[in-house]
Amino acid sequence: MPTNPHDALRAWFLGPRAENAELLERLVIESLRDHVFWRRNYHPEDGVVIREVDKRQEGYEEAVATLTQELMGLLAELKRDVPVFSGRYKGHMIGEQTIASQVGYFATMLYNPNNVAFEIAPVTTRLELEVAAQLARMIGYDPARHWGHLTSGGTLANFEALWLARGVRYLPVAVAGAAAELGLDLPVVSMSLWELLNIPGPATLDLWDTLWAAAPRADVRRALANHSLAAIGYQEYSRRLALAYGDPLPAGVVLVAATAHYSWEKIVRALGIGSNQLVYVPLDQHFRMDPDALWRQVRELARHRQSVLACVSVCGTTEESAVDRLDQVLEVRARAERELGVTFHVHSDACYGGYAAAVTRRADGTRRSGEEIRAGVGLDWPSDDWVRAVAALGEADSVTVDPHKMGYVPYSAGAILVRDGRARQLVATDPPYLSPGEPDASDTERFLGRYILEGSKPGAAAAAVWLSHKVLPLDQRGYGYLIEQTAVGARGLHAALDGAKLGPFRTVMLPLPDINIVCWVVTHPALTTLAALNGFNERIYLRMSLARGDSVPEYIITRTRLQTPMYDGAVDPVLAGLGVCTPDQWRAAGAEGLVVLRATVMDPFLAERGPARDHITGLVAALGRAAEASLKAGQAG
Amino acid sequence: MPTNPHDALRAWFLGPRAENAELLERLVIESLRDHVFWRRNYHPEDGVVIREVDKRQEGYEEAVATLTQELMGLLAELKRDVPVFSGRYKGHMIGEQTIASQVGYFATMLYNPNNVAFEIAPVTTRLELEVAAQLARMIGYDPARHWGHLTSGGTLANFEALWLARGVRYLPVAVAGAAAELGLDLPVVSMSLWELLNIPGPATLDLWDTLWAAAPRADVRRALANHSLAAIGYQEYSRRLALAYGDPLPAGVVLVAATAHYSWEKIVRALGIGSNQLVYVPLDQHFRMDPDALWRQVRELARHRQSVLACVSVCGTTEESAVDRLDQVLEVRARAERELGVTFHVHSDACYGGYAAAVTRRADGTRRSGEEIRAGVGLDWPSDDWVRAVAALGEADSVTVDPHKMGYVPYSAGAILVRDGRARQLVATDPPYLSPGEPDASDTERFLGRYILEGSKPGAAAAAVWLSHKVLPLDQRGYGYLIEQTAVGARGLHAALDGAKLGPFRTVMLPLPDINIVCWVVTHPALTTLAALNGFNERIYLRMSLARGDSVPEYIITRTRLQTPMYDGAVDPVLAGLGVCTPDQWRAAGAEGLVVLRATVMDPFLAERGPARDHITGLVAALGRAAEASLKAGQAG
Repeated sequence: MPTNPHDALRAWFLGPRAENAELLERLVIESLRDHVFWRRNYHPEDGVVIREVDKRQEGYEEAVATLTQELMGLLAELKRDVPVFSGRYKGHMIGEQTIASQVGYFATMLYNPNNVAFEIAPVTTRLELEVAAQLARMIGYDPARHWGHLTSGGTLANFEALWLARGVRYLPVAVAGAAAELGLDLPVVSMSLWELLNIPGPATLDLWDTLWAAAPRADVRRALANHSLAAIGYQEYSRRLALAYGDPLPAGVVLVAATAHYSWEKIVRALGIGSNQLVYVPLDQHFRMDPDALWRQVRELARHRQSVLACVSVCGTTEESAVDRLDQVLEVRARAERELGVTFHVHSDACYGGYAAAVTRRADGTRRSGEEIRAGVGLDWPSDDWVRAVAALGEADSVTVDPHKMGYVPYSAGAILVRDGRARQLVATDPPYLSPGEPDASDTERFLGRYILEGSKPGAAAAAVWLSHKVLPLDQRGYGYLIEQTAVGARGLHAALDGAKLGPFRTVMLPLPDINIVCWVVTHPALTTLAALNGFNERIYLRMSLARGDSVPEYIITRTRLQTPMYDGAVDPVLAGLGVCTPDQWRAAGAEGLVVLRATVMDPFLAERGPARDHITGLVAALGRAAEASLKAGQAG
Repeated sequence: MPTNPHDALRAWFLGPRAENAELLERLVIESLRDHVFWRRNYHPEDGVVIREVDKRQEGYEEAVATLTQELMGLLAELKRDVPVFSGRYKGHMIGEQTIASQVGYFATMLYNPNNVAFEIAPVTTRLELEVAAQLARMIGYDPARHWGHLTSGGTLANFEALWLARGVRYLPVAVAGAAAELGLDLPVVSMSLWELLNIPGPATLDLWDTLWAAAPRADVRRALANHSLAAIGYQEYSRRLALAYGDPLPAGVVLVAATAHYSWEKIVRALGIGSNQLVYVPLDQHFRMDPDALWRQVRELARHRQSVLACVSVCGTTEESAVDRLDQVLEVRARAERELGVTFHVHSDACYGGYAAAVTRRADGTRRSGEEIRAGVGLDWPSDDWVRAVAALGEADSVTVDPHKMGYVPYSAGAILVRDGRARQLVATDPPYLSPGEPDASDTERFLGRYILEGSKPGAAAAAVWLSHKVLPLDQRGYGYLIEQTAVGARGLHAALDGAKLGPFRTVMLPLPDINIVCWVVTHPALTTLAALNGFNERIYLRMSLARGDSVPEYIITRTRLQTPMYDGAVDPVLAGLGVCTPDQWRAAGAEGLVVLRATVMDPFLAERGPARDHITGLVAALGRAAEASLKAGQAG
C-alpha cells in the first residue's frame, strides 16, 4: 500500500508518453502466459487438438494472414481516436486508465467469466461483491446491511436505483392488499393510500419481513403477486387503486437536481413513470440543488397530495462537477416527515463524483476533517460543507458510482449501492433452473442475475476494478490523492483562465468547481447579442475539439449549453459578467441557452505544471488563438 | 477470407491446449507497442512527465511491487475459474473466444473509446454501426431502412426492443391526440382506441412522418409531449384514455414463447407493463412456440378486446436451442390482421441462435437452400422448415442477437436490430449539449446515446466484434461453418447418449436439438417417483458441475427444470419415456418440475472426435460414473 502517493502516482498509469510501457508489457505478457499454461495443465492427457501440421495448411495460414492484416487495419484506424492520455485533452469525463485495471481486465478476459452467476464465474462474482463492499465502506454504508453490484454504466445503475425505489415506495400498498387478502390484522390494512405511500423506507422493508413471517410463504407469494405493481402493471394498478381507495391520487413524481444528467429523462420514460413526472429542483449559484427550493416543492406537492417517489441529488454534476448539499437534502426529508407526514427515497447520483469520498478517508478508514484535508492539499479546498455533503452519502438510500469515470478503469463499469440490502428482494426474478424453495442470504452470491436488470456481464470488469482498488486504496493514499491532484489542477486552470490576458477577449468564469470541471465563457466587445456570443463560443469549441473530425486541435475541450428553466437563477451571475442580456432575456430565448466552454481535469499531472510542458499555460494560450480565429470566422461568415 | 474453413477453424481460437499461444502473444504485443508508439508520437515536444529518475523513487517501486504482487494474487485466484476452453466443458452458453475478438478488445481497450458519441469515439462508433449493419444483412434486413447497435447484453437488447415496440404500438394514440390538439384533419382523429392500437407497424411510423410534416416542428413536439405515454406516464395515461375514449381497454399483453428466457419477466416488470401481462404461448413437442396455440390466444384476446403489444418468438432457446417457426408466427399475425383487424409487434429473441443465420448465407450473401446446407454438413440437418424459420428473421420487426454467445466474443456484447429504423426516434432523448434544432439522419452516428438506454459504453466491444466478423465472415465460410460444426457435434452427442449402455441406467432424450444444446434425463428402475428422479438427476448435475465449488468434475454439464404450465404438452413424450408419472401428475407437482440434464455444444472440435481425446465418448462414460455414484448417495442419504 502506498506510503508516498506522490511517487506512487507515477507507477499507476501508463503515462502520457507511455513512460511505463515496459511495466505494462511485462504484466500483460505474464498474464497471457499464465493463462496459456493453465490451459496446458488442464487434463494434459487429453492431447493436442490443433496440431503443428495443421498450422502448416494453406487454410490455416490464410486465416492467420487475414487476422494479422485486419488487425493492422484496426490499429491504423485507432490512430484517429481521441488522445485522452495526453495533458492536452481536457474534454469529456475520461482520462487515463490505471495499469492495474488494464492488466486486470486483460488477464481476466482470457478466462471470460460471466458474472451473472457464481456457477459460471466463481472467482469474479466474489470480486464484484467485494468491490461493491469496498465502495459501500468508502461512502459510509453499514457493511452488514448494504447491497451492491456493478452495472454496465451509470445509466443502468441509476435505472436500477429508481426501479428499486419504486418497489420500496409502493410496497406498503402491496402489503396492505396482501394482508387484507390473507385476513392478517396488520396496521397497514386500515391506512389510507396517502399514508401508505408515505411510510419511511426502513419501516417499509420491515413490513416486508412482517408479512413473510405472518403467513405461509406460498400464500404470501401469491397474495403479493395479486397486489404488487411489478405483477399487475401500471394500467391495471391505477384502476385498482381508484377502486380500492376511492382516490387514485395524482401520479408520483421524481424530484431531480436541475443539473441532473439527461439520462434521468430516459429512465423515467422507460420505467413508465413519464417525463412529465420528472420535476427539476432549482439550483443555487454554485450549481447545487437549492435545499430551500426543494423544501418549497415538497410542501407544494404535499398540498396537492402528490406523492414523491424519489429525490435525486447529484454528487459531481456531469457539466460542472457540482456537489449537492446532500446533508441538507436529507434534512429537508426529515423535516417533511416531521411537519408534513411525507417521505421519499433519497438517491445520490454520484456516478461522476463518488470516488471523491476517498478524499475524506484516512488509511484506517476513519474520516478526515475538512481542515485536515485542506492542510494536506495546500489549498482552500474542500470546504467543511463539502465534507459534510460527501459524508452524507452514507445516509442516502441508494448511491450510484461509476468506476469507469473517476475510478480510472476501462469501460464499462458502473455501480449501484443500496443502504438497506433487503430492497433487492423486491425486484428479484427466479430463473427456471433455481431449485424450488425460498432464497437465502447466500443467494446473492450464487446468482446475481436474480436481483439485477442485466443478465450476462463481464467478470473482467469486476476484476479490473478490484485490482485497481488493491493498488490505489479508496482513501487518502490512493484514489483520495489522485482526485485531490485533479482538484488542484482544476483550480490552477480556473485561476489561469480567470486572470488570462487575451487581448480584446475576456473570460467570464463559472464558480470554482466542487471537484475538477472548469467552465467559462469567452466574450469580446463586438459580441452584443446572446446568439452572437453563443455562436462565437460554439466556434471556439469546434476549433478546440474533435467534434467535426476535420481538424487536429492544439488542446481539446468540450462545451455545454445551460438552458432554461433548469439553470434559472444559477446562471444570473455569469450573465451579469457577460453583459449581453438580462436573465429575463436569456429565459425568453428558450432553447438558445448559454454556451459554456468546459474543461474536465482528470489529468492528475496537470497540477504539477512540470517537468514536461505546463498545460495550464498551454491551454490558455491555445484558447486565445482559437478565440481570435473564431471571431474572424464569425465576421467573415 | 477463408477458402477452407476446416483448416481456418484451427487459427480462429487460442485452442484447448493454447496451441495458438504464439500467435495470440505476437498480436497482443504488436497491439500494445503500436499504442505505446502512438502516444510517443503525439506532441513529442511536450516532454516526459514520468522521468526515469521518478522510477527510482521508493514510492514508485513500492507501487510497482504492490501491483505485481496483487496481480499474482488475481492470477492465482483465476485458476479456480471455469475451463470453458476445454472439450470437457459442456455447461453454459459459453465457449472459446475468437483470437480476433480477444486482440480486437485488448488493442482498443488501450484507447478506451466511449461509444456513447462520435466525439469521444470517432473510430469505434462507426465500427459499432458497421457491425449492426453486418448482422442486419445476415438476418435479411434492408440495409437502407434498418437500425441497430450493440448493448451490454441480451437482456438490455430485449428491453430496448420492447421499449421501442411499446413506443410504436401506442404512437397512433399520441398522434390522434396531438392531431386533435393541433386541429389537423388526420383519419386517426376519429378512430376508436381499439382501432388505433391495431394499426400495423409500418403504417404507424408513416403516421409519425405525416404528423411532423403537417405542422411546425415546435408545435408537433409540444403536442406529442402532451399525448405520448413516454411523457405522461402510465398512471395519468390510463386515466386520460378512459376520459377520451370512454373505455380504457384492458392492459395490453406481451405474448412470449413458453421457453422464453426469465429475463422477459424482469423486463415487463421494469417497463411497468407488469408480469401478469406476460402471456406464455404453449409449445409443440420440439419445444417451439405452437403457431396454432398462438392463433387461438390472439383470437381469444381479440374477443376480450385486449390488445397485444408484442409477440416474442425465440430463435435458439437458452435451454434447448429450439428455433421457433417464426415464419408461421408471422403468418398468424397476417391472418389476425386479415380476419380480426388485430396486429402486434413481432420480435425475435435470437440472442442465442441469431448467428445461426450465417449457415444460410453463401459467400456472396445469397441464401443457401436446406438441401445445399445438408449436403455440405453431411447430416439430416437443418430441415427446410428450419431454413424458412431462420430466413423469416428478416421479416420480424426487431431481432436481438448476442455476439457474446454464438459470436464467440468476450463479454459484454449484445445487439438489437430494428427493421424500420424510424422507430428509434420514438425513444430519443436530447442531451443538453446538442444544439437546438431537429435531429438529422447523421445524428445516429454522431450521438448514439440519444437513442439507446445506456450511456457510456465500451468501444472496445464494438472493435472486438468487428474484427471477429472480418476474420470469420457471417456466411458459410465463417460463422456458418463454425455453427454447423457445433450442430454436428451436438447430434453426435445426442446419438451417443441415446444409445448409451449404462448398465441399469437408462437415458431418456429430449428431441434432437434445432442447433446445439442436448437435453436428457437419466433414470434407473429404483426411481419410481418424480421427486426421486429429480433428486437423482440433480445429484448427477452436482457431480458434473462447478455449482458447489467443492469438487472438480471430469466433465461439466448443467441442468434446467422444465416447469408447468410453460412446458405442458411439450414434456409429455419425455414423461412417457421415463414412466414415473403421468403428465397430469407432473402438472400437479407444480414447482417440482422435471430436472433435465443439459449439454451446450459450443465446442467446434467436438464433431471431429479426434485427433485428441473423443469427448463424446468421454462424456457418456463420465455420466455413467456420476449416475452410479449419485444413486448410491441417494440410497445412503
